[in-house]
Amino acid sequence: MARQFYVTRREVFSAAHRLHSNDYSDAENAEIFGKCNNPNGHGHNYVLEVVVKGEIIKETGYVIDLKILKNIIREHVIKKVDHKHLNHDVDFLHGINPTAENIALGIWEQLVNKIPNGELHSVKLYETENNYVEYKGE
Amino acid sequence: MARQFYVTRREVFSAAHRLHSNDYSDAENAEIFGKCNNPNGHGHNYVLEVVVKGEIIKETGYVIDLKILKNIIREHVIKKVDHKHLNHDVDFLHGINPTAENIALGIWEQLVNKIPNGELHSVKLYETENNYVEYKGE
Amino acid sequence: MARQFYVTRREVFSAAHRLHSNDYSDAENAEIFGKCNNPNGHGHNYVLEVVVKGEIIKETGYVIDLKILKNIIREHVIKKVDHKHLNHDVDFLHGINPTAENIALGIWEQLVNKIPNGELHSVKLYETENNYVEYKGE
Amino acid sequence: MARQFYVTRREVFSAAHRLHSNDYSDAENAEIFGKCNNPNGHGHNYVLEVVVKGEIIKETGYVIDLKILKNIIREHVIKKVDHKHLNHDVDFLHGINPTAENIALGIWEQLVNKIPNGELHSVKLYETENNYVEYKGE
Amino acid sequence: MARQFYVTRREVFSAAHRLHSNDYSDAENAEIFGKCNNPNGHGHNYVLEVVVKGEIIKETGYVIDLKILKNIIREHVIKKVDHKHLNHDVDFLHGINPTAENIALGIWEQLVNKIPNGELHSVKLYETENNYVEYKGE
Amino acid sequence: MARQFYVTRREVFSAAHRLHSNDYSDAENAEIFGKCNNPNGHGHNYVLEVVVKGEIIKETGYVIDLKILKNIIREHVIKKVDHKHLNHDVDFLHGINPTAENIALGIWEQLVNKIPNGELHSVKLYETENNYVEYKGE
Repeated sequence: MARQFYVTRREVFSAAHRLHSNDYSDAENAEIFGKCNNPNGHGHNYVLEVVVKGEIIKETGYVIDLKILKNIIREHVIKKVDHKHLNHDVDFLHGINPTAENIALGIWEQLVNKIPNGELHSVKLYETENNYVEYKGE
Repeated sequence: MARQFYVTRREVFSAAHRLHSNDYSDAENAEIFGKCNNPNGHGHNYVLEVVVKGEIIKETGYVIDLKILKNIIREHVIKKVDHKHLNHDVDFLHGINPTAENIALGIWEQLVNKIPNGELHSVKLYETENNYVEYKGE
Repeated sequence: MARQFYVTRREVFSAAHRLHSNDYSDAENAEIFGKCNNPNGHGHNYVLEVVVKGEIIKETGYVIDLKILKNIIREHVIKKVDHKHLNHDVDFLHGINPTAENIALGIWEQLVNKIPNGELHSVKLYETENNYVEYKGE
Repeated sequence: MARQFYVTRREVFSAAHRLHSNDYSDAENAEIFGKCNNPNGHGHNYVLEVVVKGEIIKETGYVIDLKILKNIIREHVIKKVDHKHLNHDVDFLHGINPTAENIALGIWEQLVNKIPNGELHSVKLYETENNYVEYKGE
Repeated sequence: MARQFYVTRREVFSAAHRLHSNDYSDAENAEIFGKCNNPNGHGHNYVLEVVVKGEIIKETGYVIDLKILKNIIREHVIKKVDHKHLNHDVDFLHGINPTAENIALGIWEQLVNKIPNGELHSVKLYETENNYVEYKGE
Repeated sequence: MARQFYVTRREVFSAAHRLHSNDYSDAENAEIFGKCNNPNGHGHNYVLEVVVKGEIIKETGYVIDLKILKNIIREHVIKKVDHKHLNHDVDFLHGINPTAENIALGIWEQLVNKIPNGELHSVKLYETENNYVEYKGE
């Protein structure tokens, strides 16, 4: 097998959300999610890092042209979540409690079949500068 | 006059907002504010920098103990805006279109009379890594 | 006079340059500019911060819509310098030794008459994470 | 086997480059690489992270003294690429299209036999704040 | 096995330390550790990233509530090391040369049995912006 | 007067310190400075930004060559404070309570007469990512 490289594209989106689980009563939601359960929601500048793993294409020297990866991410993720409310406005999060884990998984599923060269390796999502999650398809 | 120093405390808060002006129709709001007018709102990790200007107190070597400044900011600003919706949940922004300019001004007014040593010099508010505003009381 | 605000837009561009002064011989250039005088040039990810000072427009709550400021900067600066060689490809730097000071001044002159609301207050240009310059029209 | 640690040294270098493949015509290069194919080149502040994996040496408490790793990176990489044009000035990139992938591979090959304690685990190279690649010798 | 996620909490602490090994004479310590062996010590703002790996709990959408992980880290690590001298004030580093490797290992051992959901995957410790280590329990 | 520019050099140093005032008893020091009064000290990665204001020298295009400014800062500040204990090891802080304000003032006094072109405009000192001070000679 040829040498394997990991190439990453970073994108940022600004969205509102509210943590609320249909498995709990309102009182339980308030207790479990605390200020993240504020009825009117709150929001974040989410930082998204998408990693593609693959071989270099000899002619270009690229695993994947990052302009192409950028466009794929913007088409299938950013335009659906940027300046949106994640509980109300996003098709791929419909009915899902938008924790960072669940958002990362949703983004993975949006992208996993759209990568033309190499394969999706990781989706990393920063909710704040102190809190982030990563999903690698395991 | 004694030597003047500028001391800064940085805080972060996560909030939702929607740009919408009562001076415009819904159609005008949609045109002028674009994706920032999304009816369900969006959100940011706001970064706030509060600057106090003053002399060093000889005995402490401080203009103001930054633990005290931190507590003042948290009491009068952060606990009111963090994990909140700025259009609905914040007393000092009631009825105000929550642009970064208007939020910075509101924060200034919350803090200007609360500084025990030195005087409030500047409120800087980052909405994203690319957009920020500063108000200096001018 | 109404309250004054400072609003900032940050943009990034990637460019090559070579420091070389027509006032010096090649040997003097090599001595004075050292590795920055490398004949084939080198390059940077320049970070540009453009600050506009002005009053809030009552109806919008903006000094200037940062989407508009972004578009002005991209039209008059970024599309001329991004992925370019500053010594060869940029009309407003023709014949000028592209130090950070001279680039910042050139950018100021590109923008100073293009700001529709408020006035240009400052152009800050980071050449590296350790070196930057600011010009305020003084 | 003893406990394994990963130690990282971060270095920065400023260089010019131009993406251009000998496998394509000029017209194809212009189409495929777009603005990255600008004939006079452009440039970046590249951020390099070199990771060494190994056991702690009992006496020092180090896997490898990071001052030593810094010196190795500076001797074999930084002094060859910093303030250089990667297409013209760098022996280990001669004849290679300097994509981030190819530069990272070249840096790996410069370093892989030079690590006195532990083994080279990863070379990560940031071209911009949004684009980076990693090579782990796989 | 259910899908695996990696969730990270970042914390910062400020501490003094001195590198000094009981396996060496004073002269050897001075030579090997150089300025890090300064008798009065020096210090850092250490950045700590703790990664927990695990499945999402269906009801919450969390692997682990990051508020809970934050509290665990603060209880078992931060309150012991923040604003302390690592050679003198920290029970879990007693008699240990406080290199970044040894501190990371000590933090791992503090935390490994305290994680209520998922398992401790990694402890990453930044000593400066240019130097950091990671331990994964291997 | 010719156009005025502000040029900044950023440097980092790692030092230990303890806040303790000779104007207070030990009990008062413990109460006023809290954890910053820990007898064995603590430490920081201090970030220093030195700003020089002046005109461009026509021949070079520089206010001051930042390599020269870097060397001045390293000679007169960094080599005295980096990997040192600020209460014990630094001549220009002897007998002074090393608050950020007092350190910034000490650095200003070290540099103010050493700038060959332009004049010292500002010393900014970050103690942590959340706390910093600035002194401008006012």
